[in-house]
Amino acid sequence: MPGAILALNAGSSSIKFGLFEVGDGPELRLMSKGGIQGVGGNPHFTATDAAGASMTDKHWQGKEAEYDAMLGALLAWAESHVHPDTLVAVGHRVVHGGRDFTAPVRLTAEIVQQLDALTPLAPLHQPHSLAPIRTLTALRPGLPQVACFDTAFHNTMPAVAKRFALPREYEDEGVWRYGFHGLSYEYVSRALRQDAPGLSAGRVVVAHLGNGASLCAMRDGQSQDTTMGFTALDGLVMGTRCGTLDAGVVLYMLQQKGLDAHAVEQVLYERSGLLGVSGLSSDMRTLLDSADERAREAVELFAFRVGQETAAMAASMNGLDGFVFTGGIGEHAVAARTLVCERLRWLGVALDAAANANGAGRISTPGSRVEVHVIPTDEEATIARHTHDLIA
Amino acid sequence: MPGAILALNAGSSSIKFGLFEVGDGPELRLMSKGGIQGVGGNPHFTATDAAGASMTDKHWQGKEAEYDAMLGALLAWAESHVHPDTLVAVGHRVVHGGRDFTAPVRLTAEIVQQLDALTPLAPLHQPHSLAPIRTLTALRPGLPQVACFDTAFHNTMPAVAKRFALPREYEDEGVWRYGFHGLSYEYVSRALRQDAPGLSAGRVVVAHLGNGASLCAMRDGQSQDTTMGFTALDGLVMGTRCGTLDAGVVLYMLQQKGLDAHAVEQVLYERSGLLGVSGLSSDMRTLLDSADERAREAVELFAFRVGQETAAMAASMNGLDGFVFTGGIGEHAVAARTLVCERLRWLGVALDAAANANGAGRISTPGSRVEVHVIPTDEEATIARHTHDLIA
Repeated sequence: MPGAILALNAGSSSIKFGLFEVGDGPELRLMSKGGIQGVGGNPHFTATDAAGASMTDKHWQGKEAEYDAMLGALLAWAESHVHPDTLVAVGHRVVHGGRDFTAPVRLTAEIVQQLDALTPLAPLHQPHSLAPIRTLTALRPGLPQVACFDTAFHNTMPAVAKRFALPREYEDEGVWRYGFHGLSYEYVSRALRQDAPGLSAGRVVVAHLGNGASLCAMRDGQSQDTTMGFTALDGLVMGTRCGTLDAGVVLYMLQQKGLDAHAVEQVLYERSGLLGVSGLSSDMRTLLDSADERAREAVELFAFRVGQETAAMAASMNGLDGFVFTGGIGEHAVAARTLVCERLRWLGVALDAAANANGAGRISTPGSRVEVHVIPTDEEATIARHTHDLIA
Repeated sequence: MPGAILALNAGSSSIKFGLFEVGDGPELRLMSKGGIQGVGGNPHFTATDAAGASMTDKHWQGKEAEYDAMLGALLAWAESHVHPDTLVAVGHRVVHGGRDFTAPVRLTAEIVQQLDALTPLAPLHQPHSLAPIRTLTALRPGLPQVACFDTAFHNTMPAVAKRFALPREYEDEGVWRYGFHGLSYEYVSRALRQDAPGLSAGRVVVAHLGNGASLCAMRDGQSQDTTMGFTALDGLVMGTRCGTLDAGVVLYMLQQKGLDAHAVEQVLYERSGLLGVSGLSSDMRTLLDSADERAREAVELFAFRVGQETAAMAASMNGLDGFVFTGGIGEHAVAARTLVCERLRWLGVALDAAANANGAGRISTPGSRVEVHVIPTDEEATIARHTHDLIA
């Protein structure tokens, strides 16, 4: 089956993609990766080849910037680079799989409808997941499409880690800890099994630290617990999201401050986190470079909370053998890794400062009781692999 | 200064008290303890002497059951037992001290007004704290009264542990982690210093496990972190309260379920926790005795969350040397202590099953890296001591 697979990862204001060549074996070869920034505004389309060299860099305006036109242009660009072969399928990251979708699935009109019905579980994210599916269905009705769920990887969590202490009727209607970033965790789990099979069989906390941030407790490569909950608001301090928050504060906002639910949602999703505490920026790089005391406090709180939640994840596994950094901050912010590792020293982490400054592979000392690794994540590779498996 | 001090601990439906004789030295002698159950319904007044023998046991009805009359009867009862000496002061537990009250304070009309202004920070609890103060002021205008705050003990927490990742304007108006159960933690801190001074100087998590439940991370006897937050809703699974909950679930209740803030408050405070998960009871004893699968799941979740939050508290202190059980469940529920200690084994806890069955003093094995103690708490003794200090 020669041809190529396009993996799409659509967020609220960006679409990332990976284009992969299908060979004879199970392995896919990366042809290009890139994305569209500024979706809904002034879209900027960039792509690089497997070696990182620029293949395109263009801005769209006017009618070109409309959603369907933009996605059509991305599709045409991919098809032209695959020529004379063809796209055999498109895979999508879908944020919420709900109760029923615990593995990737080939999309049909009926399934898209079922995924749409999950929107109340992720009102801010699910619509962005479904938009490109609908557009591509209209543009290429015959092209197989596959959905890969950010929640699915956490299906192995024991019931006690999924459960909230709410009346049972909430659990019966699907209110529990789903967890997210599953495509990233799955990628890291596979990479770890390949690179460090001994550690992979143990108890590892993987830290996906980006603009969104969460931890996953993995034993033998499978999710045992995670810090994000029913929604992507829970857990760690994020760029603009509050993470874990006393629910009593939400009641205070409603009852004492007079905010309505939408206004609370905006504060907690858009104005909190690193941005809220620093008053300056949601970007870890900016804060690490800043001399402002509030920037320092925001970074301190970020690392403190990673330390606390890592301990909680270790509790879910009765111990800790390894810790993995991934995501934008995890892969690139040397100083943030240092601060986090200081908070983990009591758990047996000994950071190798020189290795950390280099930032790849193992960054703990040879004697460190807990091994610390940096593994660049690749959600699009996970999407492409699942898509390939499902259409083969 | 001969005489006696009455310590009052008023909750939503009960008032506990302790009556203490003032001697020549700093130590107070317990004369009687007891309480009124069923406040607001059919009040039941009981008291025992220092040896535990019943001194009174009566039900009040009709006009006797009205709040002021009931408190007047308690006061008269106390005065009659102190005769020919007199009450020299009454001390009160007050749930919220806000930003400004970080130590016990002798009450004036102005201060009561300031405490009343803190009601938005604890709308369900603060009014119950202030009601007996007002009644006693009317009944005995000249009697000195002292307020002791449940939040005050946690004032030693570092800023990073107090801070939520919210926009700074919330912190500026007093929205941070105050923590509660401070009078209990203070009692345990003193008892530990007396009974185990070496351990007291180290890193100890104290677990106040009752109908309300929280943990306190103590280093050298001072609070470094705690699981309750801005309100008493946060942290552990409680009898009817949810503990830590993804704030996104609150938004879901508002936006998708159509609940208003008051209805959400009722679900989270009154119908969640052990009661919500089990569907049976908020009482740990009932659940431990039940053969129902949901009762087992509720108890399992309780212990799991204590394990996770203990690890998080240890992270706040960079390690753990000791763990103390107190509160109704902590002091009496042998099986619950066993389940919690199993969750703490990876942190170095080795439980001595026989000592645990006896339930007093040290219940870890001699070789346990983390020492585990059971210390019965006494909030009224803390109130009386502070009251004595302030009026001396």
